[in-house]
Amino acid sequence: MKQATRNVRHKSRVALLLVDVINHFEFPDGKEILKRGLSIAPPLARLKKRARTAGVPTIYVNDNFGQWRSDTKKLLQYCLRPEAPGLHFVEQLQPADEDYFILKPMHSAFYQTPLDLLLRELGASSLILSGLATNSCILCTAHDANMRHLKVIVPRDCCAARTAREHSQALEHVAAMADAKVVVSSALRLGALHG
Amino acid sequence: MKQATRNVRHKSRVALLLVDVINHFEFPDGKEILKRGLSIAPPLARLKKRARTAGVPTIYVNDNFGQWRSDTKKLLQYCLRPEAPGLHFVEQLQPADEDYFILKPMHSAFYQTPLDLLLRELGASSLILSGLATNSCILCTAHDANMRHLKVIVPRDCCAARTAREHSQALEHVAAMADAKVVVSSALRLGALHG
Amino acid sequence: MKQATRNVRHKSRVALLLVDVINHFEFPDGKEILKRGLSIAPPLARLKKRARTAGVPTIYVNDNFGQWRSDTKKLLQYCLRPEAPGLHFVEQLQPADEDYFILKPMHSAFYQTPLDLLLRELGASSLILSGLATNSCILCTAHDANMRHLKVIVPRDCCAARTAREHSQALEHVAAMADAKVVVSSALRLGALHG
Amino acid sequence: MKQATRNVRHKSRVALLLVDVINHFEFPDGKEILKRGLSIAPPLARLKKRARTAGVPTIYVNDNFGQWRSDTKKLLQYCLRPEAPGLHFVEQLQPADEDYFILKPMHSAFYQTPLDLLLRELGASSLILSGLATNSCILCTAHDANMRHLKVIVPRDCCAARTAREHSQALEHVAAMADAKVVVSSALRLGALHG
Repeated sequence: MKQATRNVRHKSRVALLLVDVINHFEFPDGKEILKRGLSIAPPLARLKKRARTAGVPTIYVNDNFGQWRSDTKKLLQYCLRPEAPGLHFVEQLQPADEDYFILKPMHSAFYQTPLDLLLRELGASSLILSGLATNSCILCTAHDANMRHLKVIVPRDCCAARTAREHSQALEHVAAMADAKVVVSSALRLGALHG
Repeated sequence: MKQATRNVRHKSRVALLLVDVINHFEFPDGKEILKRGLSIAPPLARLKKRARTAGVPTIYVNDNFGQWRSDTKKLLQYCLRPEAPGLHFVEQLQPADEDYFILKPMHSAFYQTPLDLLLRELGASSLILSGLATNSCILCTAHDANMRHLKVIVPRDCCAARTAREHSQALEHVAAMADAKVVVSSALRLGALHG
Repeated sequence: MKQATRNVRHKSRVALLLVDVINHFEFPDGKEILKRGLSIAPPLARLKKRARTAGVPTIYVNDNFGQWRSDTKKLLQYCLRPEAPGLHFVEQLQPADEDYFILKPMHSAFYQTPLDLLLRELGASSLILSGLATNSCILCTAHDANMRHLKVIVPRDCCAARTAREHSQALEHVAAMADAKVVVSSALRLGALHG
Repeated sequence: MKQATRNVRHKSRVALLLVDVINHFEFPDGKEILKRGLSIAPPLARLKKRARTAGVPTIYVNDNFGQWRSDTKKLLQYCLRPEAPGLHFVEQLQPADEDYFILKPMHSAFYQTPLDLLLRELGASSLILSGLATNSCILCTAHDANMRHLKVIVPRDCCAARTAREHSQALEHVAAMADAKVVVSSALRLGALHG
């Protein structure tokens, strides 16, 4: 069965990806990543708001944290518990009704997920990659996007890693090896990218 | 980031797949499929119960119906509305807490989904395929499983199509061309398959 | 390393696929398939010739027959031995220098092959599926193409199966379930499809 | 059609991958990579010889250099022309009859290739990654292997990049982020890995 309801709510040449921002930070290095991650929440929230205004779709691609339940709401509730370490981070970056949400089982946003298909339906040939962590999921996703001939843009103030060194080396790497354009989020002209 | 919580709740050489049973039946031929599908709900519910007793994991692989929200609960609520045409079908086949739930964007349960990875984590090398529709998602999934060297078992009383002819031709096809074993559900020895 | 030589030799909205026609027929049912296959060689050879004239690219997608050597020429030589059972079939359908050649490890032309990428580089959004066998590799490939939103056209006189019944049932199936257009090869207007 | 000849010539828990060593070096930075690459040819040739003795399969995964012809021999001949810049490099690392050869269309050895399937048939759960370039195809392949739960070993003297800095940063990265074990080739105990 394949239904008639396959349509998406946007048409845009660019999409904004938020990787692993709905996060409980309960893993090795979680504390360090959260510490550095806090600084990206305000500019990323602003970028997301600008994307909405410009008609650019926002796609959350998020670890399923081993739950295999496809239950976004439950995951969100868990990360927003009053005692959750990432509460202040996550509450700035909550998905809205018009956002898309894809669960990923591993690091890359493309590996065993329908991201490729969603991007085709949106008409998106460029990706703005944001979230956690620069040298892990962002880097893997950048390579996978590049192999699919998608253009990759990474706003450096909207992603973070465990250390400043890992962050900057990963940015240098994706610029050189995955053909990514590394920018400051405020310099992104979303209207032009939306096309 | 890759977390320590990657573990699954079962180890089993076989898994039971329920394909597209959480269904609103609001698509062309939906009425016909529901009509024929109603008869599979009781034996499938029994098979699912036996699977639980035998420690065989149940995996729902379900169309996302174009929603791209990874919101299982919302989908379930919609299909269980008092006025939903498939209410009586779906209420017999609701997922339990220990079941796995994967959203698929297209026909095959493997295409752009993490099913392959979940099966590896479960240790499953055999699949019992059930649900809707025999000559569409079941057939595609059977071929994809066969190409991954997974053994396929199709209980003929636990899947349905628009017509009896399409159902039986599809069963004949997967037996001959996807190396599937077509059986009656009551003949399945789940303990032995679980290994 | 990713080189500058990524370019293809065609741009076309449609591509002609020849599936498993470079064949030694040394497998169960090989004799039966060859017997029925012989009748498709002349119309398929004509279709291939017309494709060339119209600027439509021809892609061979062929079983690697367990060799894992990526050695097309050796495979071709083996199938063209004077004593090869399929000699008369294969010699009518030999690849030319301008044709593309992809080895597939399993039934579908898409599974673990670069076909998807080649089609994107060619700009092809429609596929003409031909070759062997209608109810196996052709059927699997038709479903996989449909899930990728590619349009599928199957010229009924350019593919064959073990029996006439399996052939016609498979054609009926892909028309109904994979949205394929089943036609006679002489009716194909390649110029219009090329776009 | 799926033939009976699917078998491979080895059973081994580990496989040695040679990435992009059959190379014409005719691309930007080709000269720099060749210059640094020359030093890896002797230890890699030794490692390959030891692998053969230990029964460890060698898999070439090589760029198709935009040719889409699956013609290994032609590619090899081109890279071994007397005037080919990489002649001295390539002639030390030629595939033998018992080696496997897979063409890849993009950076990762897994992307749109049958490598995953070949590894399953070999029974290999560990990969020794060698070849060119450390911070490109080796790094992408390491991540893709890690996402498939394969163990990755990188002999640092058997891979190279444009610069020593890129080489060592990439090694540091795959050790930290793709769970790779970075070693010196002479320290590899192939018999134990073969299992």
